[in-house]
Amino acid sequence: MLSKNDLKTIARLTQKKYRLEMNRFLAEGGRLCEEAIKSGWTVERVIFCSSFLQSLRARQALQLAEEHGVPVEEVPSEVFVGLSDTMHSQGILAVVEKRAQDSEPIERMRGVPRCMWVGIEKLHDPGNMGTILRTADWLGVDGVVIGKDCVEVYNPKVVRASMGAIFHLPIYEVDDFVGTLRRFQNFSAVLYGADQSGDFSYSVLRYAPKKVLLLGDEVDGLSPEVGNLLQHRVSIPRRGGGESLNVAIAAAILLAEMSR
Amino acid sequence: MLSKNDLKTIARLTQKKYRLEMNRFLAEGGRLCEEAIKSGWTVERVIFCSSFLQSLRARQALQLAEEHGVPVEEVPSEVFVGLSDTMHSQGILAVVEKRAQDSEPIERMRGVPRCMWVGIEKLHDPGNMGTILRTADWLGVDGVVIGKDCVEVYNPKVVRASMGAIFHLPIYEVDDFVGTLRRFQNFSAVLYGADQSGDFSYSVLRYAPKKVLLLGDEVDGLSPEVGNLLQHRVSIPRRGGGESLNVAIAAAILLAEMSR
Repeated sequence: MLSKNDLKTIARLTQKKYRLEMNRFLAEGGRLCEEAIKSGWTVERVIFCSSFLQSLRARQALQLAEEHGVPVEEVPSEVFVGLSDTMHSQGILAVVEKRAQDSEPIERMRGVPRCMWVGIEKLHDPGNMGTILRTADWLGVDGVVIGKDCVEVYNPKVVRASMGAIFHLPIYEVDDFVGTLRRFQNFSAVLYGADQSGDFSYSVLRYAPKKVLLLGDEVDGLSPEVGNLLQHRVSIPRRGGGESLNVAIAAAILLAEMSR
Repeated sequence: MLSKNDLKTIARLTQKKYRLEMNRFLAEGGRLCEEAIKSGWTVERVIFCSSFLQSLRARQALQLAEEHGVPVEEVPSEVFVGLSDTMHSQGILAVVEKRAQDSEPIERMRGVPRCMWVGIEKLHDPGNMGTILRTADWLGVDGVVIGKDCVEVYNPKVVRASMGAIFHLPIYEVDDFVGTLRRFQNFSAVLYGADQSGDFSYSVLRYAPKKVLLLGDEVDGLSPEVGNLLQHRVSIPRRGGGESLNVAIAAAILLAEMSR
């Protein structure tokens, strides 16, 4: 059984500060618990609350945890609610250890003839971040670098919107975003910036075999420092109305084209 | 000044039942207020709360309302919070009259040589619905039909995520979704269903000049009734990992391709 102290420690993982300090995070819902276990991440324990545990998927995840020897603990609903980040909880969450990637971005880019990366300079909305990661995973992106002014990858809303992509994709939160891009260029990667005022319509360009799509802030776009490095600024022409596209939507349209 | 009774009436617009009954809805934030006024919709009044009114855009919207002779009323913060649907309110919202489209979907489709429509059979998430409308607007979609099992278009979260697209796009909430599709087909429209288990990769098809993209429920996809009418089921091939794409993301990739 979990002690009061254990529970207090786990509850701290709802805060970024303690996720950094403890090198752990929470993955909520049956699907995410399942993905964490199946993807071979270290799941420290699975916590559930039987009064919320309705869905088949959540019950299957619980069973999977037991089969994999993950410690499983039941908690009362008032405790679970304090850990949960959702309105309609599935009643299950996993405490997951963060995992270092087995090689640096540069190592992954060196020597490969083709690859497609995403670079996210600044992004504040966790739903957008998670959705971009989910889309990148589906479309076969080889890696993602994330600047330090972005919402944290292990934020519960990012984890949830990613639908488990964080467990598959090589994701790097880097301190020196611009320096990383420069090193990418040293290995022949071509940098494309998503920019609605860009010179090129996304569908007329021929994309290089090694390429990085750069995404900036929802409002201000990419910084001048990143802008200076770009080989191309790519836009999605407006054929109807509106002021802009959502950044995750723009990323999806561009990545789908770049992955053809 | 607004009477207590006026405020009670306006507060009711946070509920679907009363939006239907009163044929009005709320559009929150500077940008949406501006779009509502500029697009020529009837804005009954604009309500603001000076303690939240920080952004330039919100203040500009207030000024625009005054220039257009829209009645503008200040309310105290505790009243405003009851009307607002956002966590970080911009302190301004508009009471907008719903507007009937000036012609039926069928009329719009008859006689035109080319068009691109979206049909949304069932969709529950307001963020997805609003994002699809925003994307459709940008990509030049000619009209949208929405089945009766969908989240309501005038739901505050849909309105907000649409970023004003609801003020530009011809949108039809129809009772007889399948019947509407049949009538579209009578006017040579070809129906394409978004379906991850579909036979065709989206990028190999040649799309007909008159086309409708059909979107179904986040979990279950399109119903068999709609499925039977489709000419093509279109998928976005998975090159990496994950179980699925978000429906708004899939819609964006497909519409971008269909609009080329």
